[in-house]
Formats: sequence, C-alpha cells, structure tokens
Amino acid sequence: MQVYLDNNATTKVDEKVFEEMKPFFCEVYGNPNSLHSFGSSTHKKMLEALDYLYEGINAADEDDIIITANATEANNWVIKSVWLDKILDGEKNHIVTSEVEHPAITAACNFLEKKGVEVTYLNVNEEGILDAEAVKKAIREDTALVSIMWANNETGKIFPVKEIGAVCREKGVLFHSDATQAIGKVEVDVQDANVDMISFSAHKFHGPKGVGGLYIKKGVELSPYMHGGEQMDGRRAGTVDVASMIGMGKAMHLATNTMAIAYEKNHVGMLRDKLENAILKIPDTIVIGGRENRTPNTTLISIKGVEGESMLWDLNQNGIAASTGSACASEDLEANPVMNAFGSDSELAHTGIRFSLSRFNNEEQIDYAIEHIKKAVERLRNISSSYAYTPKSHESGL
Amino acid sequence: MQVYLDNNATTKVDEKVFEEMKPFFCEVYGNPNSLHSFGSSTHKKMLEALDYLYEGINAADEDDIIITANATEANNWVIKSVWLDKILDGEKNHIVTSEVEHPAITAACNFLEKKGVEVTYLNVNEEGILDAEAVKKAIREDTALVSIMWANNETGKIFPVKEIGAVCREKGVLFHSDATQAIGKVEVDVQDANVDMISFSAHKFHGPKGVGGLYIKKGVELSPYMHGGEQMDGRRAGTVDVASMIGMGKAMHLATNTMAIAYEKNHVGMLRDKLENAILKIPDTIVIGGRENRTPNTTLISIKGVEGESMLWDLNQNGIAASTGSACASEDLEANPVMNAFGSDSELAHTGIRFSLSRFNNEEQIDYAIEHIKKAVERLRNISSSYAYTPKSHESGL
Ligand SMILES: Cc1ncc(COP(=O)(O)O)c(C=O)c1O
Ligand SMILES: Cc1ncc(COP(=O)(O)O)c(C=O)c1O
Repeated sequence: MQVYLDNNATTKVDEKVFEEMKPFFCEVYGNPNSLHSFGSSTHKKMLEALDYLYEGINAADEDDIIITANATEANNWVIKSVWLDKILDGEKNHIVTSEVEHPAITAACNFLEKKGVEVTYLNVNEEGILDAEAVKKAIREDTALVSIMWANNETGKIFPVKEIGAVCREKGVLFHSDATQAIGKVEVDVQDANVDMISFSAHKFHGPKGVGGLYIKKGVELSPYMHGGEQMDGRRAGTVDVASMIGMGKAMHLATNTMAIAYEKNHVGMLRDKLENAILKIPDTIVIGGRENRTPNTTLISIKGVEGESMLWDLNQNGIAASTGSACASEDLEANPVMNAFGSDSELAHTGIRFSLSRFNNEEQIDYAIEHIKKAVERLRNISSSYAYTPKSHESGL
Repeated sequence: MQVYLDNNATTKVDEKVFEEMKPFFCEVYGNPNSLHSFGSSTHKKMLEALDYLYEGINAADEDDIIITANATEANNWVIKSVWLDKILDGEKNHIVTSEVEHPAITAACNFLEKKGVEVTYLNVNEEGILDAEAVKKAIREDTALVSIMWANNETGKIFPVKEIGAVCREKGVLFHSDATQAIGKVEVDVQDANVDMISFSAHKFHGPKGVGGLYIKKGVELSPYMHGGEQMDGRRAGTVDVASMIGMGKAMHLATNTMAIAYEKNHVGMLRDKLENAILKIPDTIVIGGRENRTPNTTLISIKGVEGESMLWDLNQNGIAASTGSACASEDLEANPVMNAFGSDSELAHTGIRFSLSRFNNEEQIDYAIEHIKKAVERLRNISSSYAYTPKSHESGL
C-alpha cells in the first residue's frame, strides 16, 4: 500500500485541478497580454481563477492578489522590498519575525542582517507559538515590518494572526503573514485578520508546483521584485503562467469553500487524531507543542530513542511517506529548527517525525500506517543503544 | 483558418513536451527534496531534463543551470545580485547594456539607476545591433557587468555575442546574455560564446510557461535572488516545479538538436522569407534592421500609413495572430522601443508589425496570411488620411 503522509511538503494535484489546466498547454496557449484572440481567449478562465483566489482568502475587490512563482518568491519579495523601500531608502532599520518561520523568511532576513538590518527573531513558547504581546514589545520606532506565519509547517500550530495584526495596525507597522500552511487547512480571512500581506503556494493545497501568490492590501506600497513587462498591473513582471494560475484558482476553490474546511476539520482531523492517539500509546512519545490549536492535518511527534531519519527509512520501505521536517531542509541532516526552538536537548532534537495528512487519505491508510509505525519503533528501539538504557522502555516492554 | 504568427510572445507547448509533464501532476507528485520514494521517484526524469538542458546550450558539466520561474526572474537575478555583490557591497558602480534589451533588463537597470548606479544603454546601429568595439569603449574601471542580448525579440537580430564575450573576458568584466529569443532558433553554445551567464524561458521554445533558467559558468559568484531552502544547491530556493522542469528539458531537446536547428533555419526561414517577400512587394514597406543576420522565424516590418494596432485588429478578425512588439509592452500603446531605437520619425514608430513563426506553421497558413495582410493594408491605407497624401501610394495604385 502507498500512504502519502507528507502533505506539508507538497500535495498531489487534484484531478479536478489538472482537468482545468489541461487546455492551456497545447490548445489555448496565447500570451494573455497579446492583442489577438489567441491571447484574449485565456482571459475568461483567468478571471474565474482570480475570483476563486479573492473568495478563498476573502480579499476585498480593491486589494491585489499577485501571482508569483511560489511562496518563496512572495516571502522574498516582502522582506527585500520592505528593505529597499523603508530601510535602504528610508528611516527604518528593524524587522520582527519568529524563530520558527520557514527558511524563505529566515534566510532572507539573515541576508539582510549582513546588510546591516536588525532582525528580532521572537522565541516561541512551549506551545510553539507566541502572543501579540510579545510582538508589541518587540516593535520599535524603526520597525519596518512584522512577519509572523499563520500556521507552522512542522507543528501545524496556529499563530494569533488577528491579534498580532491589531497590534501592528495600532503601531502603524506593516504586517505580513506567511499563510502557506494555513490555506485549505483553516479559514484564512485577510480582512478579519488585519493583515497587510500574505504569501501562499498552490502545491500545498492540491494545486500545481511553481505557482503561488502574494496578497497585498489596497494602499500598501511595495516595490516590485520582478521588474520588466507590465503584467499584474506592473507589480510583477514575467509572462503569466496561465495554466498554473488557473490551476491555483481551482485548487483554492476546492480547498477553501465552507464544506472543504469543514471536511478538513472533521474528517482529516479525525484521521490525524486517530494516528496520533495510536502513536501516543507507545511510551516515551510526545506531540511537540501540544495538541491544541493546530491545523487539522499535522502532527509533529517525538519518539524517544528513535532517530527521525531511521524512522523515515523504515516507513518508506513500507510505502509510507512522512518527514523529519520541512522538505526544504531535509536534504541536510541538521536538526529541525522547530525542534531546536523547543529547547530540546540534542537527543530529542533528532527524534521528530512529522505526519501531514490530506483529504486524499482514508482510514484504511491510517490503520496501515499505525501498524508499520509501531513495528518501526519496536525495531529501532531494539537496536538503539541509547534507548535500551532508559528505564521506561524496560517497563513498557515494548 | 487559425494562423499563429506570434511565437516570440509565446509558443504552443509541443504535445510531446506535455506528454512528458503529465505524470508529474497527479501521479508522481512528491517533493524531489523529500527522503522517501514519492520524492525520489521524480529524480530520474529530472536528471534527464538537466542533461537535455546542458546539451541544449553546450554547458560544461561543472557549470550550473539553475531553474527559475522564467527569463524575467533570471534577468532580475543577474542585474540585482551583481548590484548587491559588486556595487552596494563592492567598488564598482557601472553596468553596460543596450537600448533594445527586453524590459526585464531595462526596467531592472532603470530601478538601479534610482539607487545611484550608472547604466550605459548602448545605441544600436541601422542594422539593429552593436559591435564588440562599442562595448569595449563603454567598459570602465568600475564596470560590474555587461548584459547584451543574444537575439532581439522584435527584429530577431543576432548580436555578436562571441566577440562581446571576448572583450569582456579581456577586460575581466562579467558578461550576461539574455538568450530568451535565441534558444531553438539559432545555435546557442555557451562555451564557444565566452558568456558567463545566459537567461532563457521555456515558453519561447514550445515548453510550458512559468519556467526558465539561468546558466552560470563555473566559478561565477552570484548571490541568490530567492533565499530559503537548499534547493538547486542553495542557489535558488523554492520547491522545484518538477513537471515544468521536465517539460523544459524535453522542449530544449526538441528545439536544439541539430536537426531542429536545421529545420528552423531552412524550413521556418523559408516560410518567413516567403511571407516577407510578399509583404515587401507592397510599396512603402521596409524590414526594420534589414534582412541579414536574424533568427529565421522573425520579421519586423514597417508598413507606411498603417498603424500596427489597426493591422493587428484586421488580421485578428481573420484568425491571424501577430504583434506590434513584445507582448509585455503590448498592453500600453507606446511605440515599440526597438522602433524608437531606429530613430524612426513618430509616424513610422507606430507602423511596426512583427510576425514570428515556429515549426508548427506551414505553407498553407503563410499563403492565407499573405492574402489577408494585403487586404488589410489596402483597406487601412484607403482610410488613412496621412497615407493618401504620399505620392508613392498614388503611383502604386495599391
Ligand atoms: C510555511 C511555508 N512557507 C513557505 C514555503 C515555501 O513554499 P515554496 O517552496 O512553494 O516556495 C513552505 C513550503 O515549504 C512553507 O511550509
Ligand atoms: C528577450 C526576452 N527576454 C526576456 C523575456 C521575458 O520572458 P518571460 O516573460 O518568460 O520572463 C522575453 C519575453 O517576452 C524576451 O523576449
């Protein structure tokens, strides 16, 4: 059996999404900016896609949603254009973010630090989040931007975006939220949440890879990151990737309509809980950040004495896909930054394993996964010299 | 009949390319950076695609080809990272480019000018190109980069890249060439041409939109433009768009193998010449930049007394797609920068019309196009008050 439980890394494109995209490769292939009907015949479906995107995050008509290559581009755009606009050419010199952002935020901030920008990386608490009060305290006179994610890719933990947004409004500081892991998992309402900008990536919600977006609230000025043609009202140059944009629109619609969000919460959440409950029955296992207030599809579990990498290997042998952290970081064997953030001792730091589900998983798959997870833990603890000496495992007789 | 003669704006995805891409949406959807087989099952085809890319431009094994969202990203990356690396953090302050580059180069340079960078926009001669000597003269002690395109998008004119490259090597200045309009039209050999970097975009050679590349010669340092995960050896973050990368590889292979380049030169060139000869029989028509030394698929023609926009309209009514210039610029009705570069009087400046062919055109289509172009010129000149007064048209009795 093949069981894909790595949906926070990327997802399968929904067949319904691919159906919508298909004609835009070999048949309706014009450049939407051209003045002939090969070009304009793309417009109807592109406008429909835009409608779906606006609806999906409840953007106001006068706001902008700009199509990008992915969330990485959207995040780099925000961080670096704020730097150019407000720091290099302005009076500000400070950015506030968290220590558990995706590398597309932290690496961009690290880069700016080398250019003399001051960055505050706020710690998360034992629940894996931080509160609006912490952001409030961190904001200075010269703060140009606050960037705090909507939901964490490793733990699924949901940040108090609305409250942080309110603080930023009050202080007159731009607020960006990386919503890449929130779309399709929880309700994302940009108007309700007081955000100025959010980033997202289609392949995290059953759309194609290589396309994402940046929501920009009306009136927010932000220099383009891609200079060139006048596409996207001059905000993002480059020939529009018509098929991907249409695919992302459809994927957004399928993932964010009321029924989809309810299904995610109830059905996907139920499967995740079933999986998690079964793993937690194994002694010396904990859910990192606790079980409250998470996206319904994600669990990051630490299994004492079991290296995440070894676990992945065993599961992979049985057709089960999971992760030790974000796929971006998984090529190097460094400990996951979220695990580090929890101040885990170095032993624990390598024991994290993330299961991230989707609407395409079913109960049979979860039962199968549980069976093989148990077997893997048993095998790996048996050969783990470090774990053999901890008394608890002796007792449990696992 | 539908006749698509706007292939410099974008092209139809070759069915063979789409076939290669198809499995990578709903079936083989893993993240290539993941440690399980959903991820690694993408590798074989990705490596094949890379091989095709290296082969297509004759890159050395030790060089890098980095997948980007498009040529716009590749161009912005070069211009802005050279700025960051060598100007903002270095001793240099000058960039040399031409006045007929694509907006993805010129707009990025304009942006840097606002940051205090000096940019020389070299004029082109009456043949629409410039010679290596002009570049040599423009290079200063503080020149950080020369960026000159390989082939122009409007005229198809081919620049003396190899000679310019030799000058840059001699002077120790980085040389980038925007090869977006050259790939698949003429041979592009990065080693022979002395270039340090070239940009390209798959949708210009029958690959998908939303994917391109930057070739970077071994040893050339260039800060990443997209910070984040460790994809592409840390040179370009963001989840790799597997399907598009595989599509681009296949498209490169189909467009750049020896037979394809010969077909472009002989067959596509023959069709272009047939079209051009027929138009040139109409009085008061000229090929902008002349007929020598061009990509075989392109002609930019000025038809006196006929507004390009009106011509497009007439042709579109008959199912024929052409352009007044780059699709990027075509939404605004500004005169085409290439036409301006030729120092055309303002009347001529709006009379350019570009036909750009591809291997999917056939003779029947060209005959059909010729018929309708003639009719359109007749109709439009009849209603053109400006043209009626020019003696030549009276004589020709067109
Ligand atoms: C929270 C978060 N932000 C950004 C990204 C980057 O997405 P992409 O690789 O599509 O640019 C990811 C995905 O890895 C993510 O989980
Ligand atoms: C010479 C040249 N460079 C760059 C581009 C930009 O390509 P893209 O829109 O795919 O980024 C184009 C296409 O319009 C072009 O013709």
